[in-house]
Amino acid sequence: MRSHRIALIPGDGIGPDVVEAAWKIGEAVAAKESFALEPTRFPWSCEFYTETGAMMPEDGIETLRGFDAILLGAVGWPARVPDSVSLHGLLLPIRKAFVQYANVRPHRLLPGVEGPLKSEGFDILCIRENTEGEYSGAGGRVHQGGRDEVAVETAIFTRTGVERILRYGFEQARLRSGRLASVTKSNAQKHSMVFWDEVTRELAKEYSDVEVTSYHIDAMAARMVMAPQSLDVVVGSNLFGDILTDLGAAIQGGLGFAASANIDPTRACPSMFEPVHGSAPDIAGKDIANPLATIWSLAMMLDHLGESAASERVMRAMEAATARGIGIRPGSHTTGAITDAVLNAIEK
Amino acid sequence: MRSHRIALIPGDGIGPDVVEAAWKIGEAVAAKESFALEPTRFPWSCEFYTETGAMMPEDGIETLRGFDAILLGAVGWPARVPDSVSLHGLLLPIRKAFVQYANVRPHRLLPGVEGPLKSEGFDILCIRENTEGEYSGAGGRVHQGGRDEVAVETAIFTRTGVERILRYGFEQARLRSGRLASVTKSNAQKHSMVFWDEVTRELAKEYSDVEVTSYHIDAMAARMVMAPQSLDVVVGSNLFGDILTDLGAAIQGGLGFAASANIDPTRACPSMFEPVHGSAPDIAGKDIANPLATIWSLAMMLDHLGESAASERVMRAMEAATARGIGIRPGSHTTGAITDAVLNAIEK
Ligand SMILES: CC(C)[C@H](C(=O)O)[C@@H](O)C(=O)O
Ligand SMILES: CC(C)[C@H](C(=O)O)[C@@H](O)C(=O)O
Repeated sequence: MRSHRIALIPGDGIGPDVVEAAWKIGEAVAAKESFALEPTRFPWSCEFYTETGAMMPEDGIETLRGFDAILLGAVGWPARVPDSVSLHGLLLPIRKAFVQYANVRPHRLLPGVEGPLKSEGFDILCIRENTEGEYSGAGGRVHQGGRDEVAVETAIFTRTGVERILRYGFEQARLRSGRLASVTKSNAQKHSMVFWDEVTRELAKEYSDVEVTSYHIDAMAARMVMAPQSLDVVVGSNLFGDILTDLGAAIQGGLGFAASANIDPTRACPSMFEPVHGSAPDIAGKDIANPLATIWSLAMMLDHLGESAASERVMRAMEAATARGIGIRPGSHTTGAITDAVLNAIEK
Repeated sequence: MRSHRIALIPGDGIGPDVVEAAWKIGEAVAAKESFALEPTRFPWSCEFYTETGAMMPEDGIETLRGFDAILLGAVGWPARVPDSVSLHGLLLPIRKAFVQYANVRPHRLLPGVEGPLKSEGFDILCIRENTEGEYSGAGGRVHQGGRDEVAVETAIFTRTGVERILRYGFEQARLRSGRLASVTKSNAQKHSMVFWDEVTRELAKEYSDVEVTSYHIDAMAARMVMAPQSLDVVVGSNLFGDILTDLGAAIQGGLGFAASANIDPTRACPSMFEPVHGSAPDIAGKDIANPLATIWSLAMMLDHLGESAASERVMRAMEAATARGIGIRPGSHTTGAITDAVLNAIEK
């Protein structure tokens, strides 16, 4: 029997609630489709930090390397541990160590979900560069606290980094509509974004079957709200992708529905799947967190593992549940009730 | 009689269409409120560039310095002159030379206008830093065209720059609801944005009557779509403000309605007023451009010049026109018809 080794990192706040919910769906669909999922749970979190002084053990990355994929809940509990410690001690090191350079986030309305827009028929796949660019961390400050203080933050773009994320974008566009939107701001950022546009034009020759259009980030943000149905695959830098995917989450009804995959397309390292939402400590353990974003992320994980029939089955089961009004509004159903509704639909 | 000297720069494409339309409103309201507007027209544009080799004469900035305000239409005609030449030869030098550090953009629905959101009751004032930050232009590239090519783009934030825009934000918040939203991304940009947050906290002590909240740019973009009525005054960096104000334009029904002011709050230099939209060369001179964004910008100019009764009168006249369905949908009315409707309402 095919078998996949999965590292589960429930993390903080509602992380455990949504990961355990999604895991039930994973086990059910594996039974249906006749493969095995072998879970190993890691308690790495802010609580772990409080006990041990680190968000994960020193050999954490090496331990994870042996798995086929990682399913993560949420990291962060600002009242206990500053984000600068928790995010930079667990979430971001995994993305970087495993060169998960493609952060992939689908944005469409599940049946029955009411978004904030009047438009409904959109289906966008956002691809965010996940390892460099505006979040490189380079920079510094002089004359700290003084009248002449200056802070600089340097965005670093390498040809390797830009080319591989654009290539991933072109490949995804090929698998979908053949249209790719590349997001820059080359009329105001003349080094990094002009470079990005140049690499886009070079690759466009190679992928001549894909129709690629460049948009400025400001125009793209407006387009996602005014004409989301005009978009298909959208690729952008770390910062621009970060902004556009929260906007994407907003137009799909909120963070409760926003799934994500941190992919290493070379498959040399395990990829990581996580809901876009945070840890929401105030509602942790109360059986009210919406597990749909994590269940959707699980479906993306199954697809990545080659279990596309199982992935499809999870998506159809989620859609069957939301079409019946389950989990479509904050507070309308418990975590357990939403999970059960998806489970029932899987069994059918 | 009070008199104000105004530099008119119609610019490119539909720029002349909308500036001349707005100017008719300006003359009518000046007559009503008993003051004079003395216009001087400058033909600086891409056409001017083609004839003279420059977007404006060498003493252009010195010439403008003597005016009380500048009303600008639009700059750019990419098919004739690259944006890097036109924008950096006319629009951006004026903003910088006159230290128009506050780019102010109001976002609300005019009566009768249908936005893309289901929410309608929002009234947001975005304030964008207009002189430094992510659009400083610093950076460069090595190994150009090679496998090891690297491009860096450095955002530069000075204490002077950050403090004065935040101060302007706090002042505007005082004049409105007493609530200020400051937009950063300090969990990922640890030099520039942490600095911005620190200056915000320092100023918050001085403006203890204002309630200030920091948001990450991704969360703010989502909030503008999911809960725009929860926002009042929003202040952000050059890039973040650029993105949020296009998003603001989108939720208010489109760029046809988005007005802006480039303000030097010290009043040492003239401020500049312009619609947010571009030059749309394809529809230039066809009497179909919507002049409402420019008329609204004119109202902001009048207010800045101390003519608040005239400014109010222009706003009420615009609202009377759109409430009757005039100019609320692309193509529904000509530039002339929209202008006449506003003129009629001014006369009443
Ligand atoms: C928590 C934060 C560092 C993270 C990011 O910006 O990558 C989050 O916003 C996300 O989008 O996954
Ligand atoms: C044309 C461009 C340089 C300009 C800017 O980014 O400042 C425009 O987008 C704006 O928002 O006024």
